[in-house]
Amino acid sequence: MFGVTVRDQMMIAHSFRGDVFGPAQRLHGATYVVDATFRRTALDADDIVVDIGRAAEELHSVLAELTHRNLDDEPAFAGMNTTTEALARVVADRLAERVHAGALGETGRELDGLVVTLHESHIAWASYERSL
Amino acid sequence: MFGVTVRDQMMIAHSFRGDVFGPAQRLHGATYVVDATFRRTALDADDIVVDIGRAAEELHSVLAELTHRNLDDEPAFAGMNTTTEALARVVADRLAERVHAGALGETGRELDGLVVTLHESHIAWASYERSL
Amino acid sequence: MFGVTVRDQMMIAHSFRGDVFGPAQRLHGATYVVDATFRRTALDADDIVVDIGRAAEELHSVLAELTHRNLDDEPAFAGMNTTTEALARVVADRLAERVHAGALGETGRELDGLVVTLHESHIAWASYERSL
Amino acid sequence: MFGVTVRDQMMIAHSFRGDVFGPAQRLHGATYVVDATFRRTALDADDIVVDIGRAAEELHSVLAELTHRNLDDEPAFAGMNTTTEALARVVADRLAERVHAGALGETGRELDGLVVTLHESHIAWASYERSL
Amino acid sequence: MFGVTVRDQMMIAHSFRGDVFGPAQRLHGATYVVDATFRRTALDADDIVVDIGRAAEELHSVLAELTHRNLDDEPAFAGMNTTTEALARVVADRLAERVHAGALGETGRELDGLVVTLHESHIAWASYERSL
Amino acid sequence: MFGVTVRDQMMIAHSFRGDVFGPAQRLHGATYVVDATFRRTALDADDIVVDIGRAAEELHSVLAELTHRNLDDEPAFAGMNTTTEALARVVADRLAERVHAGALGETGRELDGLVVTLHESHIAWASYERSL
Repeated sequence: MFGVTVRDQMMIAHSFRGDVFGPAQRLHGATYVVDATFRRTALDADDIVVDIGRAAEELHSVLAELTHRNLDDEPAFAGMNTTTEALARVVADRLAERVHAGALGETGRELDGLVVTLHESHIAWASYERSL
Repeated sequence: MFGVTVRDQMMIAHSFRGDVFGPAQRLHGATYVVDATFRRTALDADDIVVDIGRAAEELHSVLAELTHRNLDDEPAFAGMNTTTEALARVVADRLAERVHAGALGETGRELDGLVVTLHESHIAWASYERSL
Repeated sequence: MFGVTVRDQMMIAHSFRGDVFGPAQRLHGATYVVDATFRRTALDADDIVVDIGRAAEELHSVLAELTHRNLDDEPAFAGMNTTTEALARVVADRLAERVHAGALGETGRELDGLVVTLHESHIAWASYERSL
Repeated sequence: MFGVTVRDQMMIAHSFRGDVFGPAQRLHGATYVVDATFRRTALDADDIVVDIGRAAEELHSVLAELTHRNLDDEPAFAGMNTTTEALARVVADRLAERVHAGALGETGRELDGLVVTLHESHIAWASYERSL
Repeated sequence: MFGVTVRDQMMIAHSFRGDVFGPAQRLHGATYVVDATFRRTALDADDIVVDIGRAAEELHSVLAELTHRNLDDEPAFAGMNTTTEALARVVADRLAERVHAGALGETGRELDGLVVTLHESHIAWASYERSL
Repeated sequence: MFGVTVRDQMMIAHSFRGDVFGPAQRLHGATYVVDATFRRTALDADDIVVDIGRAAEELHSVLAELTHRNLDDEPAFAGMNTTTEALARVVADRLAERVHAGALGETGRELDGLVVTLHESHIAWASYERSL
């Protein structure tokens, strides 16, 4: 199995609802350093998993919809806590939609899976893995 | 599949028995930077894998039983080499016991698995993965 | 010249005023991974620059006054942009006050200088250096 | 499942054929920081996955055949693009050959799998995973 | 003293002349992860050292003139070895020219100094520091 | 001013004397990831600060005298605490002796200074800087 990973980042504000979150119930924020890994069992005719330039652009586009925002104000996240793990799924699912829509070309349709990891600090990160 | 990881560290002395270890048969030591990853197929009602604060506390408690010690003197490790990979299992198994005992709450009982990685330097690390 | 550094972090929300900031004029947030370096020309009688445990506690206390907050609401920052470089000075100055008040003990009073670095992502960071 | 990883590096020149590569069709180069992970379900009698010293030597030997070269001139790579993901497989397959030939000793023959990751920069890396 | 750093990268081929370089006399290559630090004694009216967006763009432009090239073919480097330390000066001097030409605006003219660090691997890097 | 840095590591056991050290008064250990930076105002005729291969060898030789040992048993450290900062000076001073003895060649004698940084974990490190 092959994997190719690209890294980018976003900087957001948010707050959480629920006693489990303690002081994180207050409005605060985070930088998420985001790794997106594209998986595939065989390389294509160019000896690549995916066009890494397009993969980086798609990840950047997905993060551009989130960065420099207060996620508490985003209708897409109404009724949910935008925890690191929940956002990892959001990023992965939005990337998957783009792959399915052909954003990575025909060869991108042969991808098997996707892992998205969001690093919230030097001591904590979360990931979400899904098939494609 | 979701994963949430917390990082902590311990600083121990030890020595190894066996020709394969060369100069590491002498008493020496290591800083282990320790990553514990908690895995789960679905998020709970708070949109989390685990209460990350409690997860960090449990990892810290497990490492507190090991850090600032000479592991050669610990009865728990009599007859075994406390290699990086062996200690990864020790940390994982002790975390698993705590999870099973309810240390991460009821929601923690729904965790599927655990991975513990011990970094011994910038060029070597080891991990142990188990189900919960 | 000796230096000892401890690392901690804070997660804050804020916005900036001024066209130069582009989309960062919107409310957003950041994780700042914070390094505080304590400098001294000679070691003390214990062969240390500073009691590293107390240094880490003081850094943690300074960051506890900032983390999990919307800095736009903090009176201390009225009329200024809480940029990464400006916050590096805030953290350094607050640490310096504590050192001068004796928080690191008598030996801490012999420190020569302080550098605080705030990492806002994997591709950007800022620092502030001052004497003590 | 246990894993032990060692890190080393190589510095190569190469060029790619295919419009998908854009400016990387020109002769350029890369440092690959290479992680090789050896996997095994149980530890051996010495409580190790593999003799880490020998594992590091084998990885170093594999990389010595590639580093400080223009890969465009290597007959082994005629007709293929030496992309990061393709080189990850090359390194993994060459390590696997050595393991099968006994380079890691009898205990090395009990390894279950191998993962090789090549980091080409702080924002991109690729990996290849195979059984042994 | 304040400093703001941005990170980017370039991937080049080159060879060295001189026995001291051993196998690096052959054509090979490197990824250079490049950190550019802008220094200044006081913040400007916006509470910044420099417009970080423009600083990142200028660094990217300087690296765009070098990346995906064989530096042995560049007239600018005739008669010199493009070592990591020599390239650090090249990048710093080219950034300084841009700063002096006003690329970072009027406020950029008040910068005091510049440090450029090129990381060639996880175990080696070089830097060049100059005034502005 | 130019700087070239090489990284290596050592794994030692030790204990500290003095109440300030708390549990670190017990025998424990550490991995020190060690960075040695060689500084010089001008490059030599080969466009280098120092022969990086020889610099790495000298650092490795200095660390080989310390690694895989219990520093409490080393006569060289009798009567001192082998703290991270104290060991940074030991490594720097031993490197300086080698430079002065010609270990880095005639060109090495033109070095201006040396910085040695010892990383004891992901959250703490110390450095010592001296002239040559």
